[in-house]
Amino acid sequence: MPRDTKWSQTEKRAARRAFDLAYQRECAHMIKQVQRIAKDLDEPDDLWRLSDFLLQRRRDIDDLYDYRYSILPAVLAHLIADRWISLSDLNELDAEKQAFIRSLVENLARRERD
Amino acid sequence: MPRDTKWSQTEKRAARRAFDLAYQRECAHMIKQVQRIAKDLDEPDDLWRLSDFLLQRRRDIDDLYDYRYSILPAVLAHLIADRWISLSDLNELDAEKQAFIRSLVENLARRERD
Repeated sequence: MPRDTKWSQTEKRAARRAFDLAYQRECAHMIKQVQRIAKDLDEPDDLWRLSDFLLQRRRDIDDLYDYRYSILPAVLAHLIADRWISLSDLNELDAEKQAFIRSLVENLARRERD
Repeated sequence: MPRDTKWSQTEKRAARRAFDLAYQRECAHMIKQVQRIAKDLDEPDDLWRLSDFLLQRRRDIDDLYDYRYSILPAVLAHLIADRWISLSDLNELDAEKQAFIRSLVENLARRERD
């Protein structure tokens, strides 16, 4: 898919909605993880491990949630592969974009299996 | 107090015990703080605030808990001023060291008040 692909207003809105939904869900999941870890904190090193965990997850999330139209299909494919959203959340995108994103998701799933 | 002040084995053991006790207490207090914060996590930004908090506290603690005999009186004075230990935890140190540490604690308290 060429980098200068056009996005209609409807597509932009739908993509943003799906992107934000994935972010909210991924963070909600992380909040539960952190709450479980916090409950079991027992000694000083547990604190530093939690700090490392938060820092690493923050870096991962900052890297992934990069909202630029030029890379948006790849980002959305990742969010689908990670199961935060599904292809049906993107059914307002044109057929070409949906097909391209689906192929990226399949590639990611294949890489995961290999 | 000169930097080459001698520490007897008994003094070294007592200082180390007080130092470790302060560290354990300060971290135990921090664990309670983190557990309170974790319980109230609600949205993504709360996670990043918790990450910042842990990072900052880790830096503060790494800076403060520096076990070198040349700076140990100042470190112990800080731990007393912060109420993690008291002067009585250091009553195995010789009179000169105790007096010096007491004067440093008083200076810290004065600076706090001013």
